[in-house]
Amino acid sequence: MPVQRKLKMGIIGGGPGSFIGPVHYKAAILDNKVEVVAGAFSRDEVKSKKTGRQLFLNPRRVYHNYADMLESEKILPTGERIDFVTIATPNETHFMIAKEALKAGFHVMCEKPMTMNVDEARELQKIVDSTGKTFALMHNYTGYPMVKLARDMVRKGKLGEIRKIIVQYPQGRHKNPLNHLKERKSGSIEDIGTHAENLTEYITGLHMSEVCADLQILKEEPKLDYDGSCLVKFANGSRGIIQFSKIAMGEENNLGIWVYGSEKSIEWHQEQPNILKLYEPESPVQTWRRGNDYIAKVSPAAARASRLPGGHPEAFLEAFANIYRNFCDTIIQSSSGREISAVMNDFPKVSDGLRGMLFVDTVLKSSVSDEKWTKMPKR
Amino acid sequence: MPVQRKLKMGIIGGGPGSFIGPVHYKAAILDNKVEVVAGAFSRDEVKSKKTGRQLFLNPRRVYHNYADMLESEKILPTGERIDFVTIATPNETHFMIAKEALKAGFHVMCEKPMTMNVDEARELQKIVDSTGKTFALMHNYTGYPMVKLARDMVRKGKLGEIRKIIVQYPQGRHKNPLNHLKERKSGSIEDIGTHAENLTEYITGLHMSEVCADLQILKEEPKLDYDGSCLVKFANGSRGIIQFSKIAMGEENNLGIWVYGSEKSIEWHQEQPNILKLYEPESPVQTWRRGNDYIAKVSPAAARASRLPGGHPEAFLEAFANIYRNFCDTIIQSSSGREISAVMNDFPKVSDGLRGMLFVDTVLKSSVSDEKWTKMPKR
Amino acid sequence: MPVQRKLKMGIIGGGPGSFIGPVHYKAAILDNKVEVVAGAFSRDEVKSKKTGRQLFLNPRRVYHNYADMLESEKILPTGERIDFVTIATPNETHFMIAKEALKAGFHVMCEKPMTMNVDEARELQKIVDSTGKTFALMHNYTGYPMVKLARDMVRKGKLGEIRKIIVQYPQGRHKNPLNHLKERKSGSIEDIGTHAENLTEYITGLHMSEVCADLQILKEEPKLDYDGSCLVKFANGSRGIIQFSKIAMGEENNLGIWVYGSEKSIEWHQEQPNILKLYEPESPVQTWRRGNDYIAKVSPAAARASRLPGGHPEAFLEAFANIYRNFCDTIIQSSSGREISAVMNDFPKVSDGLRGMLFVDTVLKSSVSDEKWTKMPKR
Amino acid sequence: MPVQRKLKMGIIGGGPGSFIGPVHYKAAILDNKVEVVAGAFSRDEVKSKKTGRQLFLNPRRVYHNYADMLESEKILPTGERIDFVTIATPNETHFMIAKEALKAGFHVMCEKPMTMNVDEARELQKIVDSTGKTFALMHNYTGYPMVKLARDMVRKGKLGEIRKIIVQYPQGRHKNPLNHLKERKSGSIEDIGTHAENLTEYITGLHMSEVCADLQILKEEPKLDYDGSCLVKFANGSRGIIQFSKIAMGEENNLGIWVYGSEKSIEWHQEQPNILKLYEPESPVQTWRRGNDYIAKVSPAAARASRLPGGHPEAFLEAFANIYRNFCDTIIQSSSGREISAVMNDFPKVSDGLRGMLFVDTVLKSSVSDEKWTKMPKR
Repeated sequence: MPVQRKLKMGIIGGGPGSFIGPVHYKAAILDNKVEVVAGAFSRDEVKSKKTGRQLFLNPRRVYHNYADMLESEKILPTGERIDFVTIATPNETHFMIAKEALKAGFHVMCEKPMTMNVDEARELQKIVDSTGKTFALMHNYTGYPMVKLARDMVRKGKLGEIRKIIVQYPQGRHKNPLNHLKERKSGSIEDIGTHAENLTEYITGLHMSEVCADLQILKEEPKLDYDGSCLVKFANGSRGIIQFSKIAMGEENNLGIWVYGSEKSIEWHQEQPNILKLYEPESPVQTWRRGNDYIAKVSPAAARASRLPGGHPEAFLEAFANIYRNFCDTIIQSSSGREISAVMNDFPKVSDGLRGMLFVDTVLKSSVSDEKWTKMPKR
Repeated sequence: MPVQRKLKMGIIGGGPGSFIGPVHYKAAILDNKVEVVAGAFSRDEVKSKKTGRQLFLNPRRVYHNYADMLESEKILPTGERIDFVTIATPNETHFMIAKEALKAGFHVMCEKPMTMNVDEARELQKIVDSTGKTFALMHNYTGYPMVKLARDMVRKGKLGEIRKIIVQYPQGRHKNPLNHLKERKSGSIEDIGTHAENLTEYITGLHMSEVCADLQILKEEPKLDYDGSCLVKFANGSRGIIQFSKIAMGEENNLGIWVYGSEKSIEWHQEQPNILKLYEPESPVQTWRRGNDYIAKVSPAAARASRLPGGHPEAFLEAFANIYRNFCDTIIQSSSGREISAVMNDFPKVSDGLRGMLFVDTVLKSSVSDEKWTKMPKR
Repeated sequence: MPVQRKLKMGIIGGGPGSFIGPVHYKAAILDNKVEVVAGAFSRDEVKSKKTGRQLFLNPRRVYHNYADMLESEKILPTGERIDFVTIATPNETHFMIAKEALKAGFHVMCEKPMTMNVDEARELQKIVDSTGKTFALMHNYTGYPMVKLARDMVRKGKLGEIRKIIVQYPQGRHKNPLNHLKERKSGSIEDIGTHAENLTEYITGLHMSEVCADLQILKEEPKLDYDGSCLVKFANGSRGIIQFSKIAMGEENNLGIWVYGSEKSIEWHQEQPNILKLYEPESPVQTWRRGNDYIAKVSPAAARASRLPGGHPEAFLEAFANIYRNFCDTIIQSSSGREISAVMNDFPKVSDGLRGMLFVDTVLKSSVSDEKWTKMPKR
Repeated sequence: MPVQRKLKMGIIGGGPGSFIGPVHYKAAILDNKVEVVAGAFSRDEVKSKKTGRQLFLNPRRVYHNYADMLESEKILPTGERIDFVTIATPNETHFMIAKEALKAGFHVMCEKPMTMNVDEARELQKIVDSTGKTFALMHNYTGYPMVKLARDMVRKGKLGEIRKIIVQYPQGRHKNPLNHLKERKSGSIEDIGTHAENLTEYITGLHMSEVCADLQILKEEPKLDYDGSCLVKFANGSRGIIQFSKIAMGEENNLGIWVYGSEKSIEWHQEQPNILKLYEPESPVQTWRRGNDYIAKVSPAAARASRLPGGHPEAFLEAFANIYRNFCDTIIQSSSGREISAVMNDFPKVSDGLRGMLFVDTVLKSSVSDEKWTKMPKR
């Protein structure tokens, strides 16, 4: 029997000043099926309480830290205790918190990067497998309807055989991007390179077999890169370019992808998420617009991921919410032993996180190698 | 003392199959400051209950009809009873429900059109004034940050003196638009013409003094128009064109505005809401992008209406939510006798609804007049 | 037998400082089938000689004025004397020069406006008819391939029945547009309004039956308007808006047209001339790109008007050259008594000029009339 | 004393069916300063004569082959004989014809690629130097005004220090691109890769120091590549990506460049040549439009390269004509011993051809190397 109530969400991180925290809880509640009931928003108790008040939480469920929260919540009765934990803390803490939350019996929604290295990713994968809990990694860009359409076009062979893939992720909103970077512990490869990698594999389903990377490095110890360009070979023989940058001055968040097939090609940009361009030789260019029936026919997943009709634009927040919705529906379905449909099972998982860490690892190795190609390890 | 809890919302209309109902409750809760606690979603009890379950409502607060809801809720204690009513019913019922809800002591968020004629609008205005309740009319497009930026640019004189204004609202998503229209009781002038009018006056602050309208009419009794083109004179002497259409085949929801000043001009389109174009002779065209500090400097209202940084697109739902946020903040502030700031007081009111009805009335008169210009009455 | 030589062109006007003069002679020679051999470029002899030298003309064929040129050239032997005269002088002289040139036995390419009023236009039409000479009016925008494609789409019924037409022609490149205007003797209606009218009728083939115009007037005597908005009724019952402006600050030369049919719609903009957008409900938007075979299938005229393959953009000059090419091919074919094909006979004629003057006349009348609709006279 | 006549042009190649031949002679005569007087258009005499007739040439100056033409023309008196030779023949013949034409005393305009290898390029450079003749290589994309503006922005430091450069040249107009390629003797690297390289160095002035290339190869003997992706290191330490493709299905001729500086960035696309986008953090995006005074202030070369005011689009043909104009003006100035200004001396030369061949050679070497970086040789 399915849960006849809203799912209860506990948040770790996301206190005052956080960009991504509020996105998580706004997106989570968007469909009116989730409520925020607990949180450990900040190591600073004053700040944590402030966010708790803004969310109208019971003050007793605003915790000092994540360990408190896990410990206190797990002894509450079902229906009262949180169903899942959202992790929106600094990158280096994701792994530890995710591990503990899973072990404490909670489902987990984790901000990316999932871990700081491949070993942690492999370990986390084992824990997810052994606990049987639902784990989602917030690669939010795969939540966009038109990305799902792109994936279904490619997977259904509408483009023919894939021959070349170009992915870009340039950023440069700030006048002193290198200063911004220094405050962070992750370089451009972890921060945005993994999004580019995830989008590529999500849409094409092709596995990268070899990488040739050139990183621009701000400092070596700990290594901090601010720009990267990678040539890629895919398992099917096709080629690609993945490039990302923190110094693309004046660009905002211009994630984009071109997939060239033997018959047709597609182009999509995150900053104009409601359209997908379809190119074919000797034919007019087609601009597919979200929210129309002709899209549902090619991609039920895209249709499910749309809330508004064509011409009523949707954007970043809804894409985020789509990840949450599939994650939550999966929790609900699996809690009642019911089948999880393909369109529901469509959210980034621990395997995406592992694959991302393998990509980061291989790019870092390649970037200091004199050999042209560095192999991507098997998963 | 301000309310230290979420505001409680009751919805009338918005049952299964409704497009706008879910937009209302998703937008209302977006900022985690509102909760849906009651509803009379449909005259069909089965349907109403279904929506109630989807929203996890207490079944006792899913009512048979709006009268039931108003009666039952008003006797609940403060803090438990609903704070405001959202009206998302068929057009011809808005006036009656709004009137009753206000008289029952609730604040009201009303879908447009506010009423079916000018007399009703004037009557409703009196009721709002006499009850002192907060009343908002959902002219959602004025909730977009870049529309607020446009308004502030114009009002601060950045464009010089305004000389010409072009507004368009073409729609045509369906193959048989006239069949669609027949099922409705409002023509293009009420449905989308009023949005165009509201956007015009919101941005420019100019009052229309005379109108010359040409409507294409589907049937006379009751009158149903599917397309309209209006020449407009403004009180300051500037001129404009307002055109809207239900037969612009292949257009989706392409509301757009161009304001030409004596020094600069602006252009904005609802389908690409995150940008505003600024034109100036002998200068590069500027594309202002939402979510940046340089926008906050010109328009604090635009900054307040943005939740995400540049490059992370926002869209229709957030604009809707902005109307709700200002409406709710006004309720909270006024309930505690505190001042309502200008950026908070920024939402469409009963006066917008009256103005819209005067516009509709004048356009309909003009459309059957042989005289070129028909005066807009004073409010 | 066709002419086995380049056609010889004589230019009146187009001296130093002229914008449109050089466009005429560059466009005329573009296909290497015309040579400039004579000219009366300026009333100032020094200036006229300067332009003559720049064009490497025989100094004896640089004339003091147009009368000289016509008189001297007409007595030269065929093959040596000019075949046609291009008139690029101030507007108020077009009629007189065209009349004289035709009477002197020359074909004429005339800048627009053709005349200053309807009476002159009717008189010129009679002269063209009686002399049997080829007369072209430089409504250059109809020379664009994608405009020809638009026309053929409409004429072949691809859009269904036409229901609404929107045409805009906003300009505003200069900081003080009204100062610019004062130096001219023609207002916005003659200067750009006629282009908008011509484009409308060229593409749709629909006759305007009634007009309702609102002009913004700089001064009354002689009348000088700087902005106009017109509602239009077409003979088939469809409606339209034609608006043009000299005060659209920051716009450059943004002639654009939307034609809405009962099944599909099209959109074209002069500043992006190589594409035509085709809209259809429940289908992706199509962007048709110049220079591809699928365009040739719908519009042989568009194919003939393209010189470069897709992706190699063409622009203003080639559109101009297309008018010249059809004009010249018509001269050649008719001089040898051969048939003139439909794609060749495709250039603006004296009838376009008359229609333009009737439009100007009707708009001016409407603009001072209290009646809503002013009838367009029969031609 | 300067030449007081049109320059005389002889064409080798460009007979019936040629795409690029007509572009050359239309572009050359565009400014009315060049006339075509001789040609060896095809090895097929019938075809050659046909093109000669279309160009209204004296039949005696339509030659059997280039050797005939050079021999016959060089003994004609100055003023009658051709001033320069345009080479529009198949790629493998460019070198031989250019060599002979220079030795025969003619200036040369040569289609690209200049030669088939580096050795030939070095030899040709010596011949140009020793003969003192003016030699131009038709890298036409550097003729666009907005490319000149881009160059001047970069060279004047408007972008700060250059940090990353992305160049793309995807093509895919034909359904079977590989069949098309088989008929040609040059792969994508020669055909379009060299354009990308030339554009990069023209705009940035940066020398490539090392290349890491991945080519997709159709066949090995003779080698024929259809797609390439290159990582590039520049001498100043900045990085780049140059990618080009013949299998980008549905793309037309989408040469584009992004230059990211430490302060600002620019973006330009050949298919929309009249605009240049300028990005800066925390500022609106600027779209610079060709034909305006503010462009002339930054780039006199861009102003000189514009013939029409803003809003009157220019395109491919005018860019081509700009190369011709500077080439011809250089011939005229140098023939009279006068100084050649910087804006005039702005056309691709034999050094561009050599650099292009070095790029091709290095890319081909890198593509079969296991080492990541292959050094670009000194010139």
